[in-house]
Amino acid sequence: MPVFLNATDADFETAFTALLGAKREDSPDVDDVVAGIIADVRTRGDAALIELTAKFDRLELTPQTLRFSPDEIAELVAQVPAEEREALELAAARIRAYHEKQLPEDAYWTDEAGAGLGWRWTPVSAAGLYVPGGLASYPSSVLMNAIPAKVAGVERLAIVVPTPDGAANPLVLLAAQIAGVDEIYRIGGAQAVAALAYGTETVQPVDKITGPGNAFVAAAKRRVFGKVGIDMIAGPSEILVIADGDANPDWVALDLLSQAEHDESAQSILITDSADFAKAVTAAVERNLETLERRAIAGASWRDFGAVIVVDDLDRAAELSNRVAPEHLELCVADPDALAEKITHAGAIFLGGWTPEAIGDYVGGPNHVLPTARSARFSSGLSVMDFVKRTTLAKMTPAALRAIGPAAETLANSESLQAHGLSVRARLDQLNED
Amino acid sequence: MPVFLNATDADFETAFTALLGAKREDSPDVDDVVAGIIADVRTRGDAALIELTAKFDRLELTPQTLRFSPDEIAELVAQVPAEEREALELAAARIRAYHEKQLPEDAYWTDEAGAGLGWRWTPVSAAGLYVPGGLASYPSSVLMNAIPAKVAGVERLAIVVPTPDGAANPLVLLAAQIAGVDEIYRIGGAQAVAALAYGTETVQPVDKITGPGNAFVAAAKRRVFGKVGIDMIAGPSEILVIADGDANPDWVALDLLSQAEHDESAQSILITDSADFAKAVTAAVERNLETLERRAIAGASWRDFGAVIVVDDLDRAAELSNRVAPEHLELCVADPDALAEKITHAGAIFLGGWTPEAIGDYVGGPNHVLPTARSARFSSGLSVMDFVKRTTLAKMTPAALRAIGPAAETLANSESLQAHGLSVRARLDQLNED
Repeated sequence: MPVFLNATDADFETAFTALLGAKREDSPDVDDVVAGIIADVRTRGDAALIELTAKFDRLELTPQTLRFSPDEIAELVAQVPAEEREALELAAARIRAYHEKQLPEDAYWTDEAGAGLGWRWTPVSAAGLYVPGGLASYPSSVLMNAIPAKVAGVERLAIVVPTPDGAANPLVLLAAQIAGVDEIYRIGGAQAVAALAYGTETVQPVDKITGPGNAFVAAAKRRVFGKVGIDMIAGPSEILVIADGDANPDWVALDLLSQAEHDESAQSILITDSADFAKAVTAAVERNLETLERRAIAGASWRDFGAVIVVDDLDRAAELSNRVAPEHLELCVADPDALAEKITHAGAIFLGGWTPEAIGDYVGGPNHVLPTARSARFSSGLSVMDFVKRTTLAKMTPAALRAIGPAAETLANSESLQAHGLSVRARLDQLNED
Repeated sequence: MPVFLNATDADFETAFTALLGAKREDSPDVDDVVAGIIADVRTRGDAALIELTAKFDRLELTPQTLRFSPDEIAELVAQVPAEEREALELAAARIRAYHEKQLPEDAYWTDEAGAGLGWRWTPVSAAGLYVPGGLASYPSSVLMNAIPAKVAGVERLAIVVPTPDGAANPLVLLAAQIAGVDEIYRIGGAQAVAALAYGTETVQPVDKITGPGNAFVAAAKRRVFGKVGIDMIAGPSEILVIADGDANPDWVALDLLSQAEHDESAQSILITDSADFAKAVTAAVERNLETLERRAIAGASWRDFGAVIVVDDLDRAAELSNRVAPEHLELCVADPDALAEKITHAGAIFLGGWTPEAIGDYVGGPNHVLPTARSARFSSGLSVMDFVKRTTLAKMTPAALRAIGPAAETLANSESLQAHGLSVRARLDQLNED
């Protein structure tokens, strides 16, 4: 059974704090194995990739077949039914339109001292996207990672996707094609991350690696961080629904289950100001769990990590939600915009009962790669900003240097950095001579 | 002697690649020690902090003296001479003005389908800033870390700064005061990072930790990453100067030395299209090294990691600089703006001979916390963006859901996520009934 809490109970604070601190995922310690794999790929390049792919994916490759050829891609994507192709294209168009609005602007101005100041944004040159194989091989994730990179202007975008026993997901390849991906390699695991970070004879190295993966992939990304940039290390998915008594309990139940079905470690939380609504949702969850295809997973998640919290009013709901800092937050209330104003920490907000979280997973437009495990307190979902970087600009004139240079010299000397001071002083002396 | 390369030599590519790959820093492996310290602070809180501070900083504290009192701060900052205070205030005002322009804007729009889409930025609630003790205790770094946090709207900003043998740097406290820091603790090392991340009886936990530190601090930041956000792990400083034959060799020499004096692992590189200029700079570096206070450090850096590269033309210089992706890039050429257009990877650009890098360290306005070790390929300097996070917004209407819901349902089913599909279908069915 999920946790049932009433915010007015005497022991609520203790129980809520326990809920916040609950550890939902035990990552196996695979760091030594991963270190060995990375070292192997760095030393032996393609040969190591081929050997490890034979071992883990039961697939014999050659340097020539590491990468999907255009013909292979064309053949696979031709298998995708029209309905799915059209759905992917609609999703891609909407994701692209949303992310194009995120492109940051350059700035340059001259201040009162006469100094030219500003910054310029440039794209990462090459990025790599990890796509899991097998069941968790989601074409929607390909769109969500690849489109922001291409909108940012990344010139070379490579995908690595394991194909256990040679089985490739045509939808993944189609999503890659629609998103404009440049290269697709049939490799996975820590070895694929190592190939992207360090390069091999066949795989050119990239500057940034994003995308979800299992414990080996996560450990490999942590290890190559610094050599390349990485995105966040995502934990199991979460949803928090704030609903009032007029919301539709069946809809809310399905929304809670749509996170729970991802993973036994996923977490679904309902906060409502109506005890009757809480009961109705719980009943609807149980009813749906009887027939749901992934009922084993969703049931375990709901039982182990689900929570239903009854509060006196919606302000209190917002307050508790901010302490959770959920990845996904649905506001199924009469005035969702007003309630949203009170939300300070959340990855994504879905406003009103007509906005199921699943819309955001596929076709809403915003990214579905979002901060998990309460990290919305300090981080954001994936965006165009993850594929650009800022170069700051400064340009002194003689007058500007005369105005602010002496202060720099003073501070340099106070920090015992003499050459810093001298580099300013030499120019100021020249100005005094002129 | 530094490396001398001519870009037209036959073996240039090999030598340049070696320069790019040179490992300048051997971080001692302190991870086990740090893991123990963090566990100790998590378990014993203040008692562990007090014990570790006695051990490492030879300073006896109590829970009451862990934090500087307002009186202590007032007494210390009163010691700062007027000239230094004024210099810090000028620097703070300029840094604040620059960073205020970085505040990102919220967005909300309605698209053709009738869907409301957008995002909202909110500040991190609480941030902690690590300030090294002793020689590397730089008041300028306090300004560069604290001001962006305060501009972002961080409500609670705490500083940790070790005070070995009880010695505090009045300039650091003054910089903190000017920047609006809320709390200052006299603790350092991995134990201070642990206290900020997990909290103790006296130190409330924060959501994000930034600031430079030694190997122990860096290892601790890596370890608490995920529990809290962290900034980049900075490596030794670097400068690359592109200069033409008309630049001032003495100025350029001092600019190269102003990085070299930071650290024996710092790196200073000159690229020029004039062999004569290269010689003149090298001579000026040697001349200045005779009298520089930090000549032992600067000399070692220049000898071990310095490089002088002669190229045929400035386009080639830009190309090589982009491969280095330097932290600091000075363009001491006749038309620095034109050359800057060709730069794709650099932390900060200093345009023209009147802009010594040292201006950027103190009073220019842009941040001096910048990506090192070639990470300007994929990351940016510290900014207001490090202290805010984005919540995406989506709001469907019945019409919008009718338009895009079916595609979401199709994709959910193609990914075998039935509850996702049902959560959309339940609403679409309702619409069909209405």
